[in-house]
Amino acid sequence: MTISVFDHPILSGLLGDEKLAELFSARAEIDALLRFEAALAEAQAQEHVIPKEAARAITEALDGFSPDVSALRDGVARDGVVVPALLAQLREKLPPEHAPHLHFGATSQDAIDTGLAIRLSAALKLLASRLDRLVEALDALEKRDGATPVMAHTRMQAAIPVTAARKIRSWREPLMRHRARLGSVAKSAAILAFGGAAGTLDKLGDRGPAVAAQLAKTLGLNLVAHARHSERDGFADLASFLSLTTGSIGKMGQDVALMAQSEVGEVKLATSGGSSAMPHKQNPVKAEALVTLARFNATLLTGMHHALVHENERSGAAWTLEWMLLPQMTVATGAALKLGIGLAGGISFTGGKPG
Amino acid sequence: MTISVFDHPILSGLLGDEKLAELFSARAEIDALLRFEAALAEAQAQEHVIPKEAARAITEALDGFSPDVSALRDGVARDGVVVPALLAQLREKLPPEHAPHLHFGATSQDAIDTGLAIRLSAALKLLASRLDRLVEALDALEKRDGATPVMAHTRMQAAIPVTAARKIRSWREPLMRHRARLGSVAKSAAILAFGGAAGTLDKLGDRGPAVAAQLAKTLGLNLVAHARHSERDGFADLASFLSLTTGSIGKMGQDVALMAQSEVGEVKLATSGGSSAMPHKQNPVKAEALVTLARFNATLLTGMHHALVHENERSGAAWTLEWMLLPQMTVATGAALKLGIGLAGGISFTGGKPG
Amino acid sequence: MTISVFDHPILSGLLGDEKLAELFSARAEIDALLRFEAALAEAQAQEHVIPKEAARAITEALDGFSPDVSALRDGVARDGVVVPALLAQLREKLPPEHAPHLHFGATSQDAIDTGLAIRLSAALKLLASRLDRLVEALDALEKRDGATPVMAHTRMQAAIPVTAARKIRSWREPLMRHRARLGSVAKSAAILAFGGAAGTLDKLGDRGPAVAAQLAKTLGLNLVAHARHSERDGFADLASFLSLTTGSIGKMGQDVALMAQSEVGEVKLATSGGSSAMPHKQNPVKAEALVTLARFNATLLTGMHHALVHENERSGAAWTLEWMLLPQMTVATGAALKLGIGLAGGISFTGGKPG
Amino acid sequence: MTISVFDHPILSGLLGDEKLAELFSARAEIDALLRFEAALAEAQAQEHVIPKEAARAITEALDGFSPDVSALRDGVARDGVVVPALLAQLREKLPPEHAPHLHFGATSQDAIDTGLAIRLSAALKLLASRLDRLVEALDALEKRDGATPVMAHTRMQAAIPVTAARKIRSWREPLMRHRARLGSVAKSAAILAFGGAAGTLDKLGDRGPAVAAQLAKTLGLNLVAHARHSERDGFADLASFLSLTTGSIGKMGQDVALMAQSEVGEVKLATSGGSSAMPHKQNPVKAEALVTLARFNATLLTGMHHALVHENERSGAAWTLEWMLLPQMTVATGAALKLGIGLAGGISFTGGKPG
Repeated sequence: MTISVFDHPILSGLLGDEKLAELFSARAEIDALLRFEAALAEAQAQEHVIPKEAARAITEALDGFSPDVSALRDGVARDGVVVPALLAQLREKLPPEHAPHLHFGATSQDAIDTGLAIRLSAALKLLASRLDRLVEALDALEKRDGATPVMAHTRMQAAIPVTAARKIRSWREPLMRHRARLGSVAKSAAILAFGGAAGTLDKLGDRGPAVAAQLAKTLGLNLVAHARHSERDGFADLASFLSLTTGSIGKMGQDVALMAQSEVGEVKLATSGGSSAMPHKQNPVKAEALVTLARFNATLLTGMHHALVHENERSGAAWTLEWMLLPQMTVATGAALKLGIGLAGGISFTGGKPG
Repeated sequence: MTISVFDHPILSGLLGDEKLAELFSARAEIDALLRFEAALAEAQAQEHVIPKEAARAITEALDGFSPDVSALRDGVARDGVVVPALLAQLREKLPPEHAPHLHFGATSQDAIDTGLAIRLSAALKLLASRLDRLVEALDALEKRDGATPVMAHTRMQAAIPVTAARKIRSWREPLMRHRARLGSVAKSAAILAFGGAAGTLDKLGDRGPAVAAQLAKTLGLNLVAHARHSERDGFADLASFLSLTTGSIGKMGQDVALMAQSEVGEVKLATSGGSSAMPHKQNPVKAEALVTLARFNATLLTGMHHALVHENERSGAAWTLEWMLLPQMTVATGAALKLGIGLAGGISFTGGKPG
Repeated sequence: MTISVFDHPILSGLLGDEKLAELFSARAEIDALLRFEAALAEAQAQEHVIPKEAARAITEALDGFSPDVSALRDGVARDGVVVPALLAQLREKLPPEHAPHLHFGATSQDAIDTGLAIRLSAALKLLASRLDRLVEALDALEKRDGATPVMAHTRMQAAIPVTAARKIRSWREPLMRHRARLGSVAKSAAILAFGGAAGTLDKLGDRGPAVAAQLAKTLGLNLVAHARHSERDGFADLASFLSLTTGSIGKMGQDVALMAQSEVGEVKLATSGGSSAMPHKQNPVKAEALVTLARFNATLLTGMHHALVHENERSGAAWTLEWMLLPQMTVATGAALKLGIGLAGGISFTGGKPG
Repeated sequence: MTISVFDHPILSGLLGDEKLAELFSARAEIDALLRFEAALAEAQAQEHVIPKEAARAITEALDGFSPDVSALRDGVARDGVVVPALLAQLREKLPPEHAPHLHFGATSQDAIDTGLAIRLSAALKLLASRLDRLVEALDALEKRDGATPVMAHTRMQAAIPVTAARKIRSWREPLMRHRARLGSVAKSAAILAFGGAAGTLDKLGDRGPAVAAQLAKTLGLNLVAHARHSERDGFADLASFLSLTTGSIGKMGQDVALMAQSEVGEVKLATSGGSSAMPHKQNPVKAEALVTLARFNATLLTGMHHALVHENERSGAAWTLEWMLLPQMTVATGAALKLGIGLAGGISFTGGKPG
């Protein structure tokens, strides 16, 4: 089933991103949940919260565990979150004396939010490397074509001639600013969520902080003073960052589509799309898709900010809304970077309309 | 790959809709495109635009055709739309003398928009029938519990006692209004798109209208005076309708979640979700999901209205944005109706907080 | 104070609409509230719900009443709605024996929503007449320039030549469809709200329906079976209609800005904007503003649909959100129609780029 | 005229913010434009770009200048921006030999964007100080009530008891994070815009950088390497910041409204709103307004991110959209902080529902 272009076997050819998509597959999600549960058991054993044998039994059960997906699906329909059903399946594989030690003191949101953080951390590394490559591609374009004259346009009218370097700079510099900010965005998004039922680690007594510290270390996530279950600003800020990024690349796409107009001809596209009715056309497909992806993320962003109104200690409604938006925004950003790199490497400034 | 909850093997258990999802599968999309091409060839043969033998060869080639999906994927990446690559595959199966008669006088957007209309038409029939069932479920609820006293709340404060009937009516009547409007929404969305390169059927001479009429008849779509390639109000209005529908059901979900609060206890849920940390809880999972789906569609709606700014005779950017939003909005509406029917059938008014 | 362009003494020159703005002034709002209270007293006297002398005293007190605006402002800060403070001021002007008969059986939302409906009714008449004039202006443009050749553009590339008539038709027909739907939109938005504390007219006994009928008649509003306090679909649907309208005009603006590009020159603008740096430029200011207004309404629309999740019998949060959005959307639509009429009357198709 | 609640003489009592509103008055806007022109003349005189006498004449003419607002309004309608008409009025006051030195080498966007930056800089100082006060108010609340027991709620159901400190912390910590980020947001938004017609300071030869440096110093703005006319990420990021802030305060509002429910009674409100129909009610007006303001900014945010797709060297359409959104978002944030401070200082945790 393929309602989203990102999951679509055909449309994802233009709009998708295989590498990022893998991070948001059900398989990757379950894997991240299992990593959380294993790391939790190990950290709790180390801090003498659960017996070492229990931790060993748990990590063995998790290792090579293959879920009954259909039962998980029923579990989500019932519980609103996959964790209870997943734990039920795992506990069946554990000796009865160890079963209560699985997921001890944790709540579903700990597992889900941490599992997301693990994957966002990987996603942001990919985005960082693509931002670098896009900046490099624009550097190279400036080096080659920067001195080429191009008409500046203001309010959709020819203004005065400038060099291509001015154009390219206006595309690259926002991306460099986003790249510089990515580290702090990642720091707020890729955090450990570990708070238990109401965010107070009530079942861990004084061992809470030590277990949390060990857990964050094992999973490579940032440790924060308290679980932020109901504080969603890290994710909303990440969404803003993603939309800033696609918006900036979308501006480049819009400019290229305008310069590539038949009547303007200031850039030439190495690759362009064909038409079923008019084979002579050179459609700026990638450039247009960048505008689309910018507007897509600008659209979804509003929902991520509505989700800040996260009532009480956990909101089923607001939390689930994030699940529907943030993965799509992340993949859209990856796709835009990929297309942007292709576009930056595939245009040349012509120095004016070909005679 | 499963970036969208609707395509997700686990999360779709709560938020998905199998029947509607089928309509937006790549398979269903290709099938609809093939139906368009077959119906076009037949209509053109009947109107003597192409030879009858060509039409026969085309329908035979289409029948049982199985696309090379990977090549289609490459085609979308290049052309921004699947049609050129699909036609190339189809033409390989045709004798050379008939190949030019395939897709004659049509443009990619004719096929894509008509293919979407075919599936929206089916989707809207499903939504209509579910709206009927939800209204019936609320009728039944009113019949059973309507006389039960319930506290009215204004501005989050107890106001005066009313009967459950007043509550139920405020959920049902908007749905009845939406149901009444569905026919006219469908009439504007489920239309034939057939205009050729620039919407003027320039290659069909005086046979354009007759071919269009026959095509609309075969495909069960509404015939409009001119192709509306760049007039997107029918789809934007459909999106508004979908969001009105999920918004109205979301209001019911919000009310139920409030009435089901531990401290309020004015409704009892037949089924409720479990918690991994607190087994005693009765989470109003379905009710919360209805709020989520309402906010999801309210979010995506803005993008569908931005897509009204569809430049010139065809906008790659604005058109592609619709593909990213409208299928998701449709499936979200189906899911909300399904959950709403379940919720309406699964709550009972208690007559006040159980002592 | 002028945070909004619509209230801005300078920017409203481009983006504002004086006639519509008047309908949303504080003065007009208070006047509409007073009309509601007067009509209510009269209807209740006629139906023997309150004494005839009380109604006479009330209408006399209302007549020529000039509010203490500063006290109303304090009232809104305290109560979230102006009605309690307004009633307090009015009751001071009434003999003590008549004071309790003012606003009898009504609630603040009755007055506010009805007061809004009164003004929306007037606003929609204005919009209807402007839609008519814009359609006429496009008719006239087609009559004069319809046969002029113009290049069709798809995906930002020259496609095939068509006539200006094809372009103009793609602007006019959506507007005609919106015009045709305006009546039913008005019917759902310009409704009487009269339900009392919890929407059940609990204090009026069996006289509720008769009073409501009389009230609707006096105020020229549609009578509905029950007060729709918490059913906001009429207003959300109106917002969708407004955004459909500005979106369709925005498409015309985008097309004109593209055709007026220096390099394209397919339309000539009768009036264009100057630049402080480049006096030679002919900026398509009106055309650009139409794109802006389209995106503005597309933006605000999402909030109006979030407001459908209106909890319980009255939501302070969701209701207030409508106040922040709907007046702006209405005035933006009026401004777009005004600018659109000016643009349609002020462009000419040149038949191609002037040599 | 008062289409916006922020400009509304009555509704601004609840939703407005007088101090911030002043910064966005037409008067403040003109003043900021005049400050830009004066500082520009002085910097250019100092760098020998224009004669010292010209600069003296210009600053004298600007001093005490009172614009013909009606002519400015006409100018905006014609030019899309107020600057050409404003300059025309100013030049009339100058001796002919000095007139060409006014606004030399600058473009309208330099004046407008810098004028906005001047006022945003002041606005952000106000917001910073209010964020501090809100954090302090929450500190004080924690000190007084932090040990009071309160029920944690997850998914709208009572979960386990915690202390009020846990609740308060979840409101305060996001605000502290926003406060910490405010400096860098201000640095990107409160920047000098000075680039001339196409952003290249083409008329200033090698004196461009020196004039820009002096100008930034005089106006107290950040100096950036190049004018960012078409790079709107600073403003979009500011908008995200504003929405993060209102979203976080909105979460506090939602929590308070839920805890203040008649059936829950976990917080008592020092001030609450009255009802015209039910005098016994204690409406959580401020708390609800915080939810409204959060959703308002979440709504407008999407438009600010669409405006990132700012075509070419200056987009009339995208730029104007910012004018319609950013001032409102800023004032909404100021209002939310003000209300939030009032709310934090006006609630007390009761330790459970009063018997």
